[in-house]
Amino acid sequence: MGRLDQQMAFVGEVGQLKSVLRQTVLADIGRPENSAEHSWHLAVMALALAEHAPPGTDLSKVIGMVLVHDLVEIDAGDLFLYADQSEQERQLIAERAAADRIFAILPAEQATAMRQLWDEFMERTTAEARFARALDRLQPFLENFSVGGGTWKRHGITADQVLAKVKLIEDGSPTLGRYAEDLVGRAVEMGLLA
Amino acid sequence: MGRLDQQMAFVGEVGQLKSVLRQTVLADIGRPENSAEHSWHLAVMALALAEHAPPGTDLSKVIGMVLVHDLVEIDAGDLFLYADQSEQERQLIAERAAADRIFAILPAEQATAMRQLWDEFMERTTAEARFARALDRLQPFLENFSVGGGTWKRHGITADQVLAKVKLIEDGSPTLGRYAEDLVGRAVEMGLLA
Repeated sequence: MGRLDQQMAFVGEVGQLKSVLRQTVLADIGRPENSAEHSWHLAVMALALAEHAPPGTDLSKVIGMVLVHDLVEIDAGDLFLYADQSEQERQLIAERAAADRIFAILPAEQATAMRQLWDEFMERTTAEARFARALDRLQPFLENFSVGGGTWKRHGITADQVLAKVKLIEDGSPTLGRYAEDLVGRAVEMGLLA
Repeated sequence: MGRLDQQMAFVGEVGQLKSVLRQTVLADIGRPENSAEHSWHLAVMALALAEHAPPGTDLSKVIGMVLVHDLVEIDAGDLFLYADQSEQERQLIAERAAADRIFAILPAEQATAMRQLWDEFMERTTAEARFARALDRLQPFLENFSVGGGTWKRHGITADQVLAKVKLIEDGSPTLGRYAEDLVGRAVEMGLLA
């Protein structure tokens, strides 16, 4: 296969992400969100909220990360944020196998570059990865809040459980972390969170 | 409203794009595509097909454009590519009004920058806009082909009509234009196009 055919095979394959459903139910629309439109939302958030990333953060790298961060779910599916430890571990193994398969559809050096981007997102050691992970954590909070509880209510999640997850937002962006903490406080007042 | 509140209002508003349905029916998934996941697919295509843009093209600008190019459809809806001239003109007026409203949700200088990006995409005079428009034109071709005809069959579109639309792909990327032309030839052979 020529380079362009490999790239087009990848373009066709990634379209399957539109069929991977998340726990989040979309406000007003009333159906589960899929991982493709979720990834798009994160990329637009990166554009709109760029100034809340630490100084010197490479925004185009952040956007690349959020665009491809969920491709592994084509094989591994989406796991609920509050799943238990053993499920999380199984998920990680499935996601690594998916990354091995999916990125390798691209020509070799593109496959390597995109896999590195995904590994960096997962490892969360750079400013870019930490900001990207903060956006990924923040977006379902916003959806839950605007839908009047969402997965928090459906699964009986408590404020303490949510606040434990806010730490990852603070770690990527102190400003967005404070915003999320305030949101949790308001959600408790409104009875959206136990 | 503070800057962050304006930005978060924008982040909430853009989520509505997930409810805007396109003509394209997704292969394997069997439901219409929405404009949010379509925009995500274009951004991933920009990453995977970057080398087919003219030398010197600013890829992060292309990605910014494809991420926001359809936001106006939150108010204006999606128009079928083969709609007649008077419909296209009405659509353009509705999209401009939508751009006036939606981008203005952001703090002023961000609103101006994002509106300029959208205007540039629409005017199609820069290399970035021409490549972004080429991707936007190519993606439904690929979907129609893999779904066995799609909107081409449903609306009785002919090869000549499709080839007239291929010119915009060639204009943004000669390589992708040739690829699309070959695809049309194969579609005719396979009876997907009259």
